[in-house]
Amino acid sequence: MCGITGYIGHREAYPIVINGLKRLEYRGYDSAGIMMYDGDVMHLSKTKGKVSDLEIITNKEESRKKGQIGIGHTRWATHGVPNDVNSHPHFSQSGDLVIVHNGIIENYDTIKKELVTRGYEFKSDTDTEVLVNLIEEVKKSEGCKLGKAVQLALTNVIGAYAIAVFDKTKPNELVVARLGSPIAIGVGNNNEEFFVASDASPFIEYTKDAIYLEDGELAIIKKDKGIKVRKIENDKEIDANIQKLQLSLEQIEKGGYDHFMLKEIYEQPKAIIDTYRGRMLANEGVIKMAGVDDNMSKFLNADRIIVVACGTSWHAGLVGEYLFEDMARIPVEVEYASEFRYRNPIITPKDVVIAISQSGETADTLAAIKLAKSKGAFVFGVCNVVGSSIARETHAGAYTHAGPEIGVASTKAFTTQITVLSLIALKLAQAKGTLSTSAVNNYLQTMQQIPAQVENLLKIDSQVKEIAAVYKDAKNCLYLGRGFNFPVALEGALKLKEISYIHAEGYPAAEMKHGPIALIDENMPVFVIATSRGHYEKVVSNIQEIKSRSGKIVAIVTEGDETVKEIADHVIEIPDTEEAFTPLLTTIPLQLLSYHIAVMLGKNVDQPRNLAKSVTVE
Amino acid sequence: MCGITGYIGHREAYPIVINGLKRLEYRGYDSAGIMMYDGDVMHLSKTKGKVSDLEIITNKEESRKKGQIGIGHTRWATHGVPNDVNSHPHFSQSGDLVIVHNGIIENYDTIKKELVTRGYEFKSDTDTEVLVNLIEEVKKSEGCKLGKAVQLALTNVIGAYAIAVFDKTKPNELVVARLGSPIAIGVGNNNEEFFVASDASPFIEYTKDAIYLEDGELAIIKKDKGIKVRKIENDKEIDANIQKLQLSLEQIEKGGYDHFMLKEIYEQPKAIIDTYRGRMLANEGVIKMAGVDDNMSKFLNADRIIVVACGTSWHAGLVGEYLFEDMARIPVEVEYASEFRYRNPIITPKDVVIAISQSGETADTLAAIKLAKSKGAFVFGVCNVVGSSIARETHAGAYTHAGPEIGVASTKAFTTQITVLSLIALKLAQAKGTLSTSAVNNYLQTMQQIPAQVENLLKIDSQVKEIAAVYKDAKNCLYLGRGFNFPVALEGALKLKEISYIHAEGYPAAEMKHGPIALIDENMPVFVIATSRGHYEKVVSNIQEIKSRSGKIVAIVTEGDETVKEIADHVIEIPDTEEAFTPLLTTIPLQLLSYHIAVMLGKNVDQPRNLAKSVTVE
Repeated sequence: MCGITGYIGHREAYPIVINGLKRLEYRGYDSAGIMMYDGDVMHLSKTKGKVSDLEIITNKEESRKKGQIGIGHTRWATHGVPNDVNSHPHFSQSGDLVIVHNGIIENYDTIKKELVTRGYEFKSDTDTEVLVNLIEEVKKSEGCKLGKAVQLALTNVIGAYAIAVFDKTKPNELVVARLGSPIAIGVGNNNEEFFVASDASPFIEYTKDAIYLEDGELAIIKKDKGIKVRKIENDKEIDANIQKLQLSLEQIEKGGYDHFMLKEIYEQPKAIIDTYRGRMLANEGVIKMAGVDDNMSKFLNADRIIVVACGTSWHAGLVGEYLFEDMARIPVEVEYASEFRYRNPIITPKDVVIAISQSGETADTLAAIKLAKSKGAFVFGVCNVVGSSIARETHAGAYTHAGPEIGVASTKAFTTQITVLSLIALKLAQAKGTLSTSAVNNYLQTMQQIPAQVENLLKIDSQVKEIAAVYKDAKNCLYLGRGFNFPVALEGALKLKEISYIHAEGYPAAEMKHGPIALIDENMPVFVIATSRGHYEKVVSNIQEIKSRSGKIVAIVTEGDETVKEIADHVIEIPDTEEAFTPLLTTIPLQLLSYHIAVMLGKNVDQPRNLAKSVTVE
Repeated sequence: MCGITGYIGHREAYPIVINGLKRLEYRGYDSAGIMMYDGDVMHLSKTKGKVSDLEIITNKEESRKKGQIGIGHTRWATHGVPNDVNSHPHFSQSGDLVIVHNGIIENYDTIKKELVTRGYEFKSDTDTEVLVNLIEEVKKSEGCKLGKAVQLALTNVIGAYAIAVFDKTKPNELVVARLGSPIAIGVGNNNEEFFVASDASPFIEYTKDAIYLEDGELAIIKKDKGIKVRKIENDKEIDANIQKLQLSLEQIEKGGYDHFMLKEIYEQPKAIIDTYRGRMLANEGVIKMAGVDDNMSKFLNADRIIVVACGTSWHAGLVGEYLFEDMARIPVEVEYASEFRYRNPIITPKDVVIAISQSGETADTLAAIKLAKSKGAFVFGVCNVVGSSIARETHAGAYTHAGPEIGVASTKAFTTQITVLSLIALKLAQAKGTLSTSAVNNYLQTMQQIPAQVENLLKIDSQVKEIAAVYKDAKNCLYLGRGFNFPVALEGALKLKEISYIHAEGYPAAEMKHGPIALIDENMPVFVIATSRGHYEKVVSNIQEIKSRSGKIVAIVTEGDETVKEIADHVIEIPDTEEAFTPLLTTIPLQLLSYHIAVMLGKNVDQPRNLAKSVTVE
């Protein structure tokens, strides 16, 4: 869950590596470092903090920026606190080798003890320093080259990694390898230069040709010569598969908004349209999704659908459960990917597994997919990042087409995931006949109105901001919803947690009486989704119970609501739509609310502490 | 979710009613009231607060205690804040009728508006005052007797209720009725006297003969004459079914402990033995459970098992999911009862539904059972209270035999529920052959050691108390676990919420990185279950991540653990057992921790604010 960049070629490496790190800061930003090789000496600069803190150091001495070879790292700590010493890159004991590493070496402690008996000493608490010394020890004891040493060392390692290693005794070469964490290699003109990074954004303006390493692969990159890709387990050479990149740089800029998150909230009307465009022909009552069409029999014969996901995607999966069960009458089980993969789950070739992940790189989800495939299940992916690991690992899938999401707190990914799941549910309902033609058509017509309704809803921003000002100093909050909006309550609470560090918790409204209601007093704001079509009377009873205990209530209601308005302290109105689609609307004010509270509290909205955009370690 | 008591006969009613209310305070205790009829005047005493507050008022004037007829009420507010005016009993406008009510009248607002147009005025905000005036209006306009008026009025009511109504113009009569909330009628010698209560505990020393009303039934009770039971919907008379009570009064006393909760924590070794006694013949490798044996084909042919429950029972259900899937290889879906019943769930006659509830009266769980039965599913109950509504509504079941649980925060109910679920899972595994004979035998032998291990574990009380002292002032806490211990993390957090009002939240450990980790700083204690058999290395990685962000860590580890001890701030050791049974052990220190923190904070451990022992309203 760190970002790696590297360059080897004929240009000055420094601007490429440092700007690359800035683009990768979404992956982690608690410390940063860079190694520049000037043809003679390796210059190491590293520090706790962000890439901008690293630049303060490199700007002090020009020598720190010199050379045509460099590797860099922006860190999200797993072993050892974020400090200067634990920052990457890390040297080997001899000072010849240097490494950057994304991931976790689980058996580092055992290896470390062994190396200590052989005379190695360690400066940092990291698993990474253990790895670079293991490579050095193998190289020395086997008398082999760097590539072979890396390959042999990795066969002794348990864990997940993407690494880039440089050996100053062989300075025309970089070795990279991957297991579980992504790595992309950009190929410059005629193999003259090469770029290495955790995703393609750092080198998008230099080349459109990229190789994405697969798990268990290692690449030996030689300036002016080319790339050799080998299997780590048996050192066999395999063909490198060069792809054309489609990402544009403008897409990853802020476009006039204060924060990426705010930009992405406002992009939702367009993102939802992009997601259903070409798939939903509302006037003809047709839904076209190649990944579903081509595998319709799998879906129709499924005993059940198992959704695996983490975080916000897991919440989208819960909405999916309500959609699939209600519309298509197929039993759905939603699982935390991390729990699913380790508990010997029951999966058969008659199961359909839907894996949801914005980045398509979520480590636990990826592992769950592999497990499900090994048991013969059909696996369908719902990802946002094209060509991501999950997109490649699944049998079929549907992209969300939300465009790049940079803000760590997911917004448009969530609503577009729900859009995709709604389309699949309707398509299956159509095929199974569980909804009438007119019901499906009505849903499609209603879906077409959603983007304009979201657009209108965004205009209440100033009202939400006023409410945010009232509750910004709360230490705890509850979020309640029922039915389709129970997952929205979970998601609303997660947003507040992520960016404002306020402890918010979501609950199905009726569960409140089984414990959480004890928390309620005059200091506890409760955000309740009470739309008119969703068990309204029941939610009103729950609101009464909170009010009876002096809780503060902010309610999200349907336009024209009268009853809740009399009881709640604040109400936010959303337009009327089908109950199944209300999550696409009720989510919006909760996103804005979290955003404004975080801004008012002076938090770093796009890069909240401790988090990373895509969780590529377990 | 209130408690009702009543008496009509030849003894002084006051001590019977007031002591009955004290025994029912577990159902709610935010206000209390009593009406005594001295043969001429109805004396009403009521107040915000507990039954002891009510006694201060009644003790001031002897007239308030006079008479051989009385009804009483202890309240858990649903409509209107807890205050003197909203407390029960409520009079009708004329002053002739008086009512006590447990439940919610959902259409009270419509009825109230109608009554206002007919000249009725209301003193309180309650739905109850609306109901008593509706009865009066019907009685007046139809010119009928009280019983008929109650019957007709109730046909116009939407909601849930248990009521007792008295009419001073017909003073030898009490009318009671039930829909959704329990009511028991004690029958004294030769129909000379009658007792009315929400459960049988208020009259246990006076009579062992009781009638439990079924939903939709109304009883007209006449002193010296007898009881007539009628159907509310059509006024048809039906036979009253008198049962013999088995409850003993000593069972519901504290037995030397400071609190019921502490007593119940310490009762767990015995409660677990009581639960498996006679069912588990470990030496012979035999499990006998009549409810399962008699319906084995239902279980073996089940496409899936659906568990419905609320609160702590829902957590036990999640442990059950891991047990059933792991041992018996049957797919399990665990549902919040409140969500399940309102979302048009997919249930077929091939599904087995397991409903879990300590009290057997949980309204949402009961409604979920009725829904599942209406769809043809086989429904199996796991309850603690013998003869409870859920025990009666299910096709078969297994009692937990934990003995009465009075503390509002459930403890021994949870561990005995897990015990029952373990036995069922093993029995099904045996029948299906998914576990070998030796594996089942090993599990049974291991289960036999659990009570002694719990007994030993309770000896670490003073160590847990020290840890409690360190963290008692925390405003927020996280609880993390994986696999079998993920539900224990949820349950540990719920205990702390319920009795100390500290906002604690449980998470599957690996999900922390998808948001909650943003909350972690040096002020945030994190309780982590890291037993040696449960994905230990993964949890250790999670602990490292928390430590890297300066979080405070209290870890529950297996005896002899070294690695976590070096990282965590505090460790609590539990004995080794099969991974599947660890929840029975890891739960214990978390119960003690919550208990000690609540005591140190001066909270009312057995009757936490806002809560009630059994949630008999939706």
